[in-house]
Amino acid sequence: MENNIKLIHGDGGKDTSLLIKEIFHKHFNNNLLINSLDASVFEVNQGKLAFTTDSFVVKPLFFSGGDIGKLAVCGTINDLVVSGASPLYISCGFIIEEGFSIDLLEQVAWSMGEICKETGVKIVTGDTKVVEKGSVDGLFINTSGIGVINRGYEQKPIKEGDKVIVTGGIGEHGTTIAIERYEMKVKGNLKSDCMPLNKMIEKLEKYADNIKLMKDPTRGGLATALNEIAESAGMGIHLQEEHIPIKKEVMSVNQLLGLDPLYLACEGRMILVVDQKECESILKEIRQCEGYEDSAIIGSFVSSGAHPIVFMETLIGGRRIIGTLEGAMLPRIC
Amino acid sequence: MENNIKLIHGDGGKDTSLLIKEIFHKHFNNNLLINSLDASVFEVNQGKLAFTTDSFVVKPLFFSGGDIGKLAVCGTINDLVVSGASPLYISCGFIIEEGFSIDLLEQVAWSMGEICKETGVKIVTGDTKVVEKGSVDGLFINTSGIGVINRGYEQKPIKEGDKVIVTGGIGEHGTTIAIERYEMKVKGNLKSDCMPLNKMIEKLEKYADNIKLMKDPTRGGLATALNEIAESAGMGIHLQEEHIPIKKEVMSVNQLLGLDPLYLACEGRMILVVDQKECESILKEIRQCEGYEDSAIIGSFVSSGAHPIVFMETLIGGRRIIGTLEGAMLPRIC
Repeated sequence: MENNIKLIHGDGGKDTSLLIKEIFHKHFNNNLLINSLDASVFEVNQGKLAFTTDSFVVKPLFFSGGDIGKLAVCGTINDLVVSGASPLYISCGFIIEEGFSIDLLEQVAWSMGEICKETGVKIVTGDTKVVEKGSVDGLFINTSGIGVINRGYEQKPIKEGDKVIVTGGIGEHGTTIAIERYEMKVKGNLKSDCMPLNKMIEKLEKYADNIKLMKDPTRGGLATALNEIAESAGMGIHLQEEHIPIKKEVMSVNQLLGLDPLYLACEGRMILVVDQKECESILKEIRQCEGYEDSAIIGSFVSSGAHPIVFMETLIGGRRIIGTLEGAMLPRIC
Repeated sequence: MENNIKLIHGDGGKDTSLLIKEIFHKHFNNNLLINSLDASVFEVNQGKLAFTTDSFVVKPLFFSGGDIGKLAVCGTINDLVVSGASPLYISCGFIIEEGFSIDLLEQVAWSMGEICKETGVKIVTGDTKVVEKGSVDGLFINTSGIGVINRGYEQKPIKEGDKVIVTGGIGEHGTTIAIERYEMKVKGNLKSDCMPLNKMIEKLEKYADNIKLMKDPTRGGLATALNEIAESAGMGIHLQEEHIPIKKEVMSVNQLLGLDPLYLACEGRMILVVDQKECESILKEIRQCEGYEDSAIIGSFVSSGAHPIVFMETLIGGRRIIGTLEGAMLPRIC
């Protein structure tokens, strides 16, 4: 195959077909995909399904800790997981700029395939479009996903005293993108937190009744996600700054850029709202999973007045209101 | 709301939320969407589901007979229908260029909502990304869809003598796009054939056992779709040029452009392979549906040698082999 994508690769004819076989079928290798025609067909049992979609336009396409392909598969897996579902099947739609390197496209497909192998999720249907040079910035990917809702993980009413857990250092994905976008030189080994959350959640099944809500703090970061939770619960959230896990590198880069890590995207972290009485056992269980060692209880739900607010007790003992993201932080982080 | 899309509309904060409520919730109005958080959740019965995805990058965004929104919803509905499924739920992912008109975005959303009303299909989950001016050409949309497989419409073995029906004039979508792309002045009232196919198929239920295969001839057109069918059946297809419905305007525009309408996309036509003995009754039933009056039986399956080929008996009595699309026809027709 030649080295660059041409418009004919998106024409729906022989070249499209060849590209799909040589790149996508090879790396996403499963019979549902290979045998699918206009749609993929599979059996389901009676029950509840979750269905989600996300488009990925991250810039740069490759970054420390991942690339657009890993991000696209993890992002959709994680949206299903926080909805209380076991992810099963994923679709992917590629929009590729004419002239894009076929080798890079294959690297992206390989990344997607690796996450599928790791998680057991299958990419079962896809679409490939090519647009003229200058009509898209390299490569955009849409992934949609279907999962089956697990009994026990549905949302439950939140009450005063319930605890908020976050499963690792925050803002690492957004900060990594910022560093690479602005070509900053930073010491240390900071990389995107991008990873699939389904394996960790499977280990928490015995605690499902005490897990009231899950959410992944992507665009808008921890602060925006907590505000959405507070609003839907009609309660306030009292955060302890000293307990929020933030890496030193994340702090210093954000100070330099004038950004606030509370608002920067994570792509492999989860917020869990859990019952107070089981919060320590749940935290312990989470911390035992590889990659989740920095998980922490960062705050509690409190009754609030007319407006459910999120506020943080700062390191120096003050209180700061943490609102929803209002201005632009950093575009194209996912 | 201001008149143009800004980067902050894609940040995942307040502006994103407002845009989604004021445009998408308004036009796609249904509770599954409005109540969905990271994913939409719904009940399904035991059985088979079909799952499909398509990205839409059509240029221009608005054309005679439709726009990118109508195309995106119809395209995914039709992929489900030809897979033997009743379409139920659709996701949509918008990638919008900074500076894009909010009024135009609303027109697109309105079109999508109209097709949903007409077909009963619901848009239940979505995603909105905004990229910097110059990083995408206006607006791209991905739609993925889930449908439930209807008993009776699954694929059946094709045998010699089986007939090929096409449900209306071919190449009208592709030709319309060509006319508008090249700003050609053409007499007559040619418009895109873009429409949803589910209602017509519902009326054919009593004939389902005699319908062996369905396919919509989109990218690559009638010729490419028939080649795919011939190859998978391991048989030849003998077409009669005189029976293939092609509008005069389509013929003359294509002659002018040096394009072949057999390879131009349709976005609201279906190819059906049907048993010979019921083909006239099925054709009659299809023709009674509004918009399907020009449906015709255009050829038959014949046994073939080593290579399943599609050939056409021409108007002047010759024979022409109709191969799969090999070169570029017209990019970005869907």
